[in-house]
Amino acid sequence: MAGSTYGTIFKITTWGESHGAAIGVVIDGCPAGLPLSEERIQPFLDRRRPGQSAYSTPRKESDTVRILSGVFEGKSTGAPISMLIENTSQRSHDYTQIASCYRPGHADFTFDEKYGFRDYRGGGRSSGRETIGRVAAGAVAILLLKEMGISFHTFTRALGPVTLTDEAFDPSLLGETPTGIPNQTLNLEAEAFLKQCMENKDSAGGIVECHVNGLPAGLGDPVFEKLDANLAKALVSVGAVKAFEIGEGIHAARLTGSQNNDGFMLQEGKITKRTNHSGGTLGGISDGSPVVLRAYIKPTPSIFSSQETVTCNQEEITINIKGRHDPVIVPRAIVVVEAMAAITILDALLLNMTAKLDSIIDFYSKK
Amino acid sequence: MAGSTYGTIFKITTWGESHGAAIGVVIDGCPAGLPLSEERIQPFLDRRRPGQSAYSTPRKESDTVRILSGVFEGKSTGAPISMLIENTSQRSHDYTQIASCYRPGHADFTFDEKYGFRDYRGGGRSSGRETIGRVAAGAVAILLLKEMGISFHTFTRALGPVTLTDEAFDPSLLGETPTGIPNQTLNLEAEAFLKQCMENKDSAGGIVECHVNGLPAGLGDPVFEKLDANLAKALVSVGAVKAFEIGEGIHAARLTGSQNNDGFMLQEGKITKRTNHSGGTLGGISDGSPVVLRAYIKPTPSIFSSQETVTCNQEEITINIKGRHDPVIVPRAIVVVEAMAAITILDALLLNMTAKLDSIIDFYSKK
Amino acid sequence: MAGSTYGTIFKITTWGESHGAAIGVVIDGCPAGLPLSEERIQPFLDRRRPGQSAYSTPRKESDTVRILSGVFEGKSTGAPISMLIENTSQRSHDYTQIASCYRPGHADFTFDEKYGFRDYRGGGRSSGRETIGRVAAGAVAILLLKEMGISFHTFTRALGPVTLTDEAFDPSLLGETPTGIPNQTLNLEAEAFLKQCMENKDSAGGIVECHVNGLPAGLGDPVFEKLDANLAKALVSVGAVKAFEIGEGIHAARLTGSQNNDGFMLQEGKITKRTNHSGGTLGGISDGSPVVLRAYIKPTPSIFSSQETVTCNQEEITINIKGRHDPVIVPRAIVVVEAMAAITILDALLLNMTAKLDSIIDFYSKK
Amino acid sequence: MAGSTYGTIFKITTWGESHGAAIGVVIDGCPAGLPLSEERIQPFLDRRRPGQSAYSTPRKESDTVRILSGVFEGKSTGAPISMLIENTSQRSHDYTQIASCYRPGHADFTFDEKYGFRDYRGGGRSSGRETIGRVAAGAVAILLLKEMGISFHTFTRALGPVTLTDEAFDPSLLGETPTGIPNQTLNLEAEAFLKQCMENKDSAGGIVECHVNGLPAGLGDPVFEKLDANLAKALVSVGAVKAFEIGEGIHAARLTGSQNNDGFMLQEGKITKRTNHSGGTLGGISDGSPVVLRAYIKPTPSIFSSQETVTCNQEEITINIKGRHDPVIVPRAIVVVEAMAAITILDALLLNMTAKLDSIIDFYSKK
Repeated sequence: MAGSTYGTIFKITTWGESHGAAIGVVIDGCPAGLPLSEERIQPFLDRRRPGQSAYSTPRKESDTVRILSGVFEGKSTGAPISMLIENTSQRSHDYTQIASCYRPGHADFTFDEKYGFRDYRGGGRSSGRETIGRVAAGAVAILLLKEMGISFHTFTRALGPVTLTDEAFDPSLLGETPTGIPNQTLNLEAEAFLKQCMENKDSAGGIVECHVNGLPAGLGDPVFEKLDANLAKALVSVGAVKAFEIGEGIHAARLTGSQNNDGFMLQEGKITKRTNHSGGTLGGISDGSPVVLRAYIKPTPSIFSSQETVTCNQEEITINIKGRHDPVIVPRAIVVVEAMAAITILDALLLNMTAKLDSIIDFYSKK
Repeated sequence: MAGSTYGTIFKITTWGESHGAAIGVVIDGCPAGLPLSEERIQPFLDRRRPGQSAYSTPRKESDTVRILSGVFEGKSTGAPISMLIENTSQRSHDYTQIASCYRPGHADFTFDEKYGFRDYRGGGRSSGRETIGRVAAGAVAILLLKEMGISFHTFTRALGPVTLTDEAFDPSLLGETPTGIPNQTLNLEAEAFLKQCMENKDSAGGIVECHVNGLPAGLGDPVFEKLDANLAKALVSVGAVKAFEIGEGIHAARLTGSQNNDGFMLQEGKITKRTNHSGGTLGGISDGSPVVLRAYIKPTPSIFSSQETVTCNQEEITINIKGRHDPVIVPRAIVVVEAMAAITILDALLLNMTAKLDSIIDFYSKK
Repeated sequence: MAGSTYGTIFKITTWGESHGAAIGVVIDGCPAGLPLSEERIQPFLDRRRPGQSAYSTPRKESDTVRILSGVFEGKSTGAPISMLIENTSQRSHDYTQIASCYRPGHADFTFDEKYGFRDYRGGGRSSGRETIGRVAAGAVAILLLKEMGISFHTFTRALGPVTLTDEAFDPSLLGETPTGIPNQTLNLEAEAFLKQCMENKDSAGGIVECHVNGLPAGLGDPVFEKLDANLAKALVSVGAVKAFEIGEGIHAARLTGSQNNDGFMLQEGKITKRTNHSGGTLGGISDGSPVVLRAYIKPTPSIFSSQETVTCNQEEITINIKGRHDPVIVPRAIVVVEAMAAITILDALLLNMTAKLDSIIDFYSKK
Repeated sequence: MAGSTYGTIFKITTWGESHGAAIGVVIDGCPAGLPLSEERIQPFLDRRRPGQSAYSTPRKESDTVRILSGVFEGKSTGAPISMLIENTSQRSHDYTQIASCYRPGHADFTFDEKYGFRDYRGGGRSSGRETIGRVAAGAVAILLLKEMGISFHTFTRALGPVTLTDEAFDPSLLGETPTGIPNQTLNLEAEAFLKQCMENKDSAGGIVECHVNGLPAGLGDPVFEKLDANLAKALVSVGAVKAFEIGEGIHAARLTGSQNNDGFMLQEGKITKRTNHSGGTLGGISDGSPVVLRAYIKPTPSIFSSQETVTCNQEEITINIKGRHDPVIVPRAIVVVEAMAAITILDALLLNMTAKLDSIIDFYSKK
């Protein structure tokens, strides 16, 4: 199946393996007229680039993006935007181990079951490098949404046992700490925890939180294409995400209606909610409040301590994984979560233009 | 947008409003040859039918299904299966209140924002009755999967403050208690809590858990169409679901890799996982272990205590909701969650048949 | 596969068999606010209803449409519109013949090959009655497009050997003759030919032509989703259509560039084409000229003279088809062609709203 | 809209402009295990490469394909296959003319209307070079279908006034003549006609015919996804194709039922049709006979004689087009038509695997 394509109007197709020649994405359906250049995309890729802290893989990749089509005289033309990022650090590995056995927590086994064999070099298509295409496409979505007054801020809500409270949130530290936690003390705590993990040849997980501000009411459709349903798919489609919530989310299941309902009120002549337990949607449609999402990320499966597993030839063995691996992927996953949220929201925003006959008539009569 | 259609191969389209003439679903893409009749579908609808306990709306509906097409001589023909359920209890309400103001926690406001107006009778399209079509289609999916040895069990994991532990799980009580909790003591505790909620003119939420057994390895695609990503969309698309998790889910974010990884082993000559923290998928592809899902459901927004809100004419008011409402939807949501999981899994199972050239050649050479 | 669903934004799903309980369609994605009622839809169904002339099947069906959802207070709500037409004249046939052998020119054989068996009653899903759902949905599309100043006229361009020239076209006779040819003399000639066909126990084919007026420039996408490509699919998806052309079409293959190119000019300050050989599109995108389409329809396969064929049990036999059959379907196909063109164009019109960033910003800033 | 993506299971996305850095395609959903290499793809691209005869543009392009992903150890892995072809001959043109006015028969005007501006260099996205991606993807489809015993032969049926009769067809000349007509005398006649066209500063069109052999019965779906409907879309989506027919096609509209119907018979114990007027489908489903398609191609719009048109600033002018242009595109379109037919058929073949419950159970029980 065509599982590397995502979106209805703003549709992206990613391609590429960890140790192949290159990684890339094609955006089909980007509206014409958006100012675009490699300079505008690169900063997003730099946010997920490896080797930026002690807690990410030491693999060296510049992850430099090239735009090959769909941009002319500095603007998107409406034609597909093809972006390519070369893999430069596919060092000549010894792939014997990864080729011959099934690493716990990885997709080696399921790829073999599904496809009969797999590109085992560095995880092939199931590598975290697959997200590069998502980030490049997400950058375009974020830039486009910015033109419409919609913005994102995304950060680490928890890393291992360390959790950021709302009170401790320091907006000035967004994107400024190695762990992605926007609080100096908690960041240091999390760093200490990570160091201990590494010493233990172990790894950690955490929670990424994404806020979307400035979203108009009306996005999303009432039944299967609820905005929150599509955001759930978007975030859970990121490797290692094992749970998704919006607004109160998990906690809402324990509240009563009188605690969880958000009353409406008037604010500057505009209808708004008094609280935002719902996390920005009602009945699957954006309600004008900030959208608040959380992705729960499992610990990196590649750990350096011994693990029990089997070989492709059905022998039980103990393995010791080698190579370059992030002890935690949460900090690098922040921009990936943001990218997926942006792509999903942009698609909903474009689709929503067709909801009302009046506005359609209006749209065409103005032309 | 066409938000009432779901699925790629096994594709369903639901339609109908709470107080319209009827509710229905069309299944397009059901394989030919499945034994089908109204008698086989009805039990699934009965599981979500109102009026079966003190904790569901007293609205009286028989929810009797009629199959209008796609079945011939007791079997599916491959043509679309149209199923229709008449609404019989649309009593002549006074709709003034619901028509003129925005109920907290409901989609009244967002429908008006999106479409300019709304069918306000009983919630219209955003009513829980929308799920009838999902359940009828889900019944077909469950019946088909059963022919392939795939089965489901789904139950209430938590209701308000009451939580079922794995130890307390009593399989003989599946589907046998008013709260959906398969344990007699905990069910009574939950009932007591619900009675208190109703006395307080309040409502409750909870957690539904779904297990899928017998799934072959290989279903789902590695990137955007991960099996877990599609299950997340499926479950969060059910009204009132605010969070989704698979396997360890939320908890996985707090574990280390050595705790969370599932080692492989041989069992009767077959490769299996030693544990199932992953919840039945690896890299978005089913791994042969049971799939374990949880949907977090918010408390019913319709509560009988006073709430602050605004009218459509932008006046702040206090409302007291009347009518027939479930104090908790969790017990009736069980079969809806199961239906959505089954539809999603069946689609993945059909799509997976095209993954390998060998099996395709095999398939056609046998014909 | 889900082959009974069509469209991206304005998405329709048809269902029903010739001799089943009912036939229907669900429209998902109809914009809210369109005035709709059964009275507005019925006239379109009446245009394809059988029994209206000596040249259509004497099967008696009122083909009365019921709207079951998606309309409230006389207007579309944005929710799925479910329409149902009961089959009332499924007379208790002797189906032995059609059940046991493969009629030439029909889908009996291919259904058995694909699905393993078939609903043989009256052709089941492959009957011409399948088009009822298309016409009901097309009526909605035509009514919506009318609100935007877009109109259709569709007629018989040829029937058997009789061809309408442009000079002979009499607009006052559109929809007024039994053959659908808008010219009194040619209509009589065609009627005489049909009578002869019927005497010969034979059948005829012909050409349906559809003009779309008032279409704005810009609809359709440059590569696979060319407006003409989608119109080709739409028309060839109608049973019995064996060829499609736009503008000069077939003839264009014989012209030179200097003959076929349409120069541009200014007309009342607006850029228009001097001629319309292209038939209203350039590079797959509507150019503001009328869209001109032609569907080539094969002769009805059900003829009353003897034919050579085989039984399902692989015996060669001679069959003599009985029952009620149109000697030509061209007159009744007119509204089907128009419906399919309208559904396709409406979808392109809705999709086109997302082409330019400027207009998107404009759209949302006005809200 | 995402108009550069095509297919449901075997899904391709093309990108690139005539004078951009490169042209490419991503295939998402190619089954794993197909032997693939650049050497196997290149011959197909060579068939459409410019500069191979006196009747194609003298633009020099090697059109060398690079596979960037989805192939490992010489076989497709199931992951997206990204193929890239660099543009090497974007000579530094003077684009003033093409940038400032609307060439007759081209998409300059409609692109401006749709997107607000356009990449005018060499036609940008609406250039014939867009078809390179189709051919690269089509090569993969053709190679895969070949593994299943399905083959194609495609040729020029007519060029300008010269038409190949069935009797004149010489299979040994398939792909061997400059005009694509597999007959030496007729090829020379067509060459003479083309030379005259060029002297007249004019251009020609023609007809491409494609035969698909070895197709099993059962492909395609009965309503909107008829195999012929999708082939119609596929072929008409190729720039310059103005009409489509299958089997008798256009001619069928003039026949009677007794002339056009294909009786069935037994041949070596297998049910087959006595004739093939239907062109290989019945009711939209392949019937086991060869599929016979024809695409009607308009004359190249770029001609060197003077033409009347308008500028983007709305001034009427006379233009004389310069540059490198094919006097006829028919010979180079042959492989494009074949590619589109193959992609469409492969998708139908994959989708058809899910039609019958029995075969699905069979498929999974064998695993």
